[in-house]
Amino acid sequence: MKEKNKINAKIAVIGGDRRQAAAAEYFAGQGYNVVIFGVSPADCYDLKMADTLAEALYDADIAVLGLPYSNDGVKLCCPGFSREIRIQDILNPQYTSLKVFGGRLDPSAYALADVYGIRLFDYYDREELCVLNAIPTAEGALAIALNEMKTTIHGSYALITGYGRIGRVLSGMLKALGCRVIVSARHPSDLAWAESQALSWIHTSEISSVIPEADVIFNTIPHTIFCEPELSRLRSGVPLIDLASKPGGVDLEAAKRLGTNLIWALSLPGKVAPITAGHYIARTIIHMLEDNVSENDSRKSTASEK
Amino acid sequence: MKEKNKINAKIAVIGGDRRQAAAAEYFAGQGYNVVIFGVSPADCYDLKMADTLAEALYDADIAVLGLPYSNDGVKLCCPGFSREIRIQDILNPQYTSLKVFGGRLDPSAYALADVYGIRLFDYYDREELCVLNAIPTAEGALAIALNEMKTTIHGSYALITGYGRIGRVLSGMLKALGCRVIVSARHPSDLAWAESQALSWIHTSEISSVIPEADVIFNTIPHTIFCEPELSRLRSGVPLIDLASKPGGVDLEAAKRLGTNLIWALSLPGKVAPITAGHYIARTIIHMLEDNVSENDSRKSTASEK
Amino acid sequence: MKEKNKINAKIAVIGGDRRQAAAAEYFAGQGYNVVIFGVSPADCYDLKMADTLAEALYDADIAVLGLPYSNDGVKLCCPGFSREIRIQDILNPQYTSLKVFGGRLDPSAYALADVYGIRLFDYYDREELCVLNAIPTAEGALAIALNEMKTTIHGSYALITGYGRIGRVLSGMLKALGCRVIVSARHPSDLAWAESQALSWIHTSEISSVIPEADVIFNTIPHTIFCEPELSRLRSGVPLIDLASKPGGVDLEAAKRLGTNLIWALSLPGKVAPITAGHYIARTIIHMLEDNVSENDSRKSTASEK
Amino acid sequence: MKEKNKINAKIAVIGGDRRQAAAAEYFAGQGYNVVIFGVSPADCYDLKMADTLAEALYDADIAVLGLPYSNDGVKLCCPGFSREIRIQDILNPQYTSLKVFGGRLDPSAYALADVYGIRLFDYYDREELCVLNAIPTAEGALAIALNEMKTTIHGSYALITGYGRIGRVLSGMLKALGCRVIVSARHPSDLAWAESQALSWIHTSEISSVIPEADVIFNTIPHTIFCEPELSRLRSGVPLIDLASKPGGVDLEAAKRLGTNLIWALSLPGKVAPITAGHYIARTIIHMLEDNVSENDSRKSTASEK
Repeated sequence: MKEKNKINAKIAVIGGDRRQAAAAEYFAGQGYNVVIFGVSPADCYDLKMADTLAEALYDADIAVLGLPYSNDGVKLCCPGFSREIRIQDILNPQYTSLKVFGGRLDPSAYALADVYGIRLFDYYDREELCVLNAIPTAEGALAIALNEMKTTIHGSYALITGYGRIGRVLSGMLKALGCRVIVSARHPSDLAWAESQALSWIHTSEISSVIPEADVIFNTIPHTIFCEPELSRLRSGVPLIDLASKPGGVDLEAAKRLGTNLIWALSLPGKVAPITAGHYIARTIIHMLEDNVSENDSRKSTASEK
Repeated sequence: MKEKNKINAKIAVIGGDRRQAAAAEYFAGQGYNVVIFGVSPADCYDLKMADTLAEALYDADIAVLGLPYSNDGVKLCCPGFSREIRIQDILNPQYTSLKVFGGRLDPSAYALADVYGIRLFDYYDREELCVLNAIPTAEGALAIALNEMKTTIHGSYALITGYGRIGRVLSGMLKALGCRVIVSARHPSDLAWAESQALSWIHTSEISSVIPEADVIFNTIPHTIFCEPELSRLRSGVPLIDLASKPGGVDLEAAKRLGTNLIWALSLPGKVAPITAGHYIARTIIHMLEDNVSENDSRKSTASEK
Repeated sequence: MKEKNKINAKIAVIGGDRRQAAAAEYFAGQGYNVVIFGVSPADCYDLKMADTLAEALYDADIAVLGLPYSNDGVKLCCPGFSREIRIQDILNPQYTSLKVFGGRLDPSAYALADVYGIRLFDYYDREELCVLNAIPTAEGALAIALNEMKTTIHGSYALITGYGRIGRVLSGMLKALGCRVIVSARHPSDLAWAESQALSWIHTSEISSVIPEADVIFNTIPHTIFCEPELSRLRSGVPLIDLASKPGGVDLEAAKRLGTNLIWALSLPGKVAPITAGHYIARTIIHMLEDNVSENDSRKSTASEK
Repeated sequence: MKEKNKINAKIAVIGGDRRQAAAAEYFAGQGYNVVIFGVSPADCYDLKMADTLAEALYDADIAVLGLPYSNDGVKLCCPGFSREIRIQDILNPQYTSLKVFGGRLDPSAYALADVYGIRLFDYYDREELCVLNAIPTAEGALAIALNEMKTTIHGSYALITGYGRIGRVLSGMLKALGCRVIVSARHPSDLAWAESQALSWIHTSEISSVIPEADVIFNTIPHTIFCEPELSRLRSGVPLIDLASKPGGVDLEAAKRLGTNLIWALSLPGKVAPITAGHYIARTIIHMLEDNVSENDSRKSTASEK
């Protein structure tokens, strides 16, 4: 089948949260023919909503699923929708010419797509989306810190463990607010990047020495680096804001035992800035369409947060 | 009476909120002999608390009252204290050698102090405190914006009306977070300062032209500049965060009628960063003691927010 | 005489350096009828040049002189022009309806203008121009430091004495380049402003304690604060860049005796960014025309550099 | 042979420019036993200088060569030294226990080292050094722009092509100075990084559209992207500062023909901040010693400038 002209391409946005409504809106603003299904009507303003999945997918070129696409590998995530949408109703012999984009796809989804030769892509694998998502994540972390602290961020002393995407964006924001920031990393080149940004830095293995001075700590490393010895060095009440995805960076039992003021903040982009986060998803998918990504490429995961 | 050596000077902190507890702590950290009365014990940690006003003031050199010192000119503000403390029990013939520092003093307080020749000073008149308070005010405004907006601050478009203390600190913070900021002012020299900070600017009389583009608006001008014509140009849901002290900068009736998302955020320093705000008060009073301010000087109010 | 419409107003730019050519160009770009005389033709591109002073002033509404307008009170400054232009040929009974704008006017010029009732204004008195000029001054100071230092600005330690216009702009630039900056001032409110910008600060009376650590020093205070005791504390070779107008901030004899690496950098805007500096002059004059400034106002000097 | 204790290790710094003197000084400050040979005595202050190469290498554990180590593969670069030093006199059966660190080593050097089993490492291959070198490179580029432009950097419009190490550091500096910066890159993730820094960006293939607006252009891409069509779109006199290593990013013949104001600025770190650049080299070598890098590892080149 010949590729339809972009301007006429039909995108069906199926399931997901408010971000997907924003993504749909973005697609529409770019001239795509957009239909939406399985998203809370309250979020969908003037968008065209389908009554059934079949109507949404009828003649569609592209289907866009939520982030994550599913929690159980069977039903789509559609928190604003009262009915169930099953993945197998999309990855289905009826829709072999569809390109399907989902977030955090798992092997079962790829296996199902393979059965019918459906092209399936994970937009969350794209480095650009992970970089962009560091922005709302950092803003969300900042909002938590502003709410938790009884001092100003300005003049306070913050430790950020990890200098990957989130560490880089967050450290820049905090420093710009007048916070005294120290970042930790392990690789000399990451520490050199920190130095290039005029940040104080320390090797991650040595953070114990600065923990007692910290007024707030942000962790971005998804390995348990805050165990009893580290946690016991935090001053009372100091917020430890863990931004790392599961399993996080904190020994939860030790934190509970010690009464650490731990805030494990997951999935901030969708919570603090769903519209921006949805636009990021849409922009990433448009890039993927422009790149004409092959299925093979699509499965190559990018480097995870350093 | 000869001035006691600073290190031996006794400061009685009387009334006020959590900031006063933090101020007391700061004084103690600087080597002053501090006693506290009329502040919630929960905020006072290891500080020495007096059981009665007389005990607190016994042999005291300095009394420090809250901000504001009183709401009615009769009783001190002491929200964390169950009993009443009357001003006339401090500004009183018993304590003629006392130096009394209060916030937002009014003519009735000065009149009472004059009767007994008590030296009375308003720390809130000091420009340095107003400048420092712009920091927690800006952080509080930022926290409100982060909570209200469904997009990131980064990349959004913010209008800040007024380029005085708050406008200068807030605009720098927002710009550093990647916000596209436009500030308004009336004086060419203020606009030149804005330009020196690489900010976009507009004359305050012309803000109507940019209001429709704004994703968030911060007002710092304590005159009604947002009336029906301006308010009707805001896009639906855009937060209008009014940081100006009474009467504020917004026609409240018009805002109500038009359904404006108005947040009038007063007295942010004490709310968002009471410890920092208390330290600012203490530092300011120490400067005033160092300056050995005369009573005449103390009544000269500094310029108000531009 | 009725004021001509702005769009038809004729501006004669008389004398001055490259900045005046840039000012003339700016006026022309704003729709004024511009003629130029006494400026190097090499700087004047497509501008209309008069052959004589009389031709330039014929029917002119406004005359704009250089910065400074004169070095001796008799002849205009016109470094790019081979002939002399006498002030009395402009402030002259022939041109009583002229508005004359000059830079750094002196009492003799005002006296001469008064004789004939000519309206004379000093654009250099305008606070906005002084603020804007801090930008090229700071960039010029930065260029000097970059050339003088054998280390990077990034990571080095800079002392800036004085936190007025230049101190504020320069400190922000240096900090943004990763320099560790400490500023000095005397007024608590200036120090509070420095703190609001997350700068380290020190009272000017205590700079001796930090001089030995400094990798570069910038002075903006036009009083002699660097005498033998201070100068003898500088490490060998450390550049001391004096940006203060006469008499500057350094004891020149002591500096010579001690071999201080002193760079007294005067009038940087016209040297490092003549085009920008000329545009600032033109913009300021346009504001003065819009303000319809009276002669009385024009002589009120604004506050000098703190 | 047993490794000597770090504190007793002897480092012989052989040849190179002022950076090597600074590196030697840094090593000495860290407690190493340092001897220097083949560097201009004027740069060496209190360092111990050997009279002969043999004396320098006697009992040395580590030899450090310049950057580049040689221009011809035969003689060391030693611009401040009147005699020749041959590489084969170091990579020599006499010194088989030596660890030798040089910059920009070539296959011939590795081959020679292999013959005698001498461990040879290229510190310029380390990502951290390349990142750090972006700092003086950016400062040098800034100094050139400040000198070349007749306007301020503040308010001007700069195009930076390439968003690798230099692009990232330079764009941050320029933006902080109030410059309106647009960066170009090809990879969506690099553009996402630029967006995270609140920079304007454009795909490198589309720079032609912004060239006419640029007041200054910085190239960091070592491929010819500025050919006749691009160069002919630059406004007259606009500086094009090429920071890319050979072959650079500009068609030199076209630039000459068109009279482009081209400044090809190579090797800025050693020119603008030799002391800092030397410290970076020393720090990098210390990291390599700590990592106890194997010869195999040492030859793996890190990613080149994007």
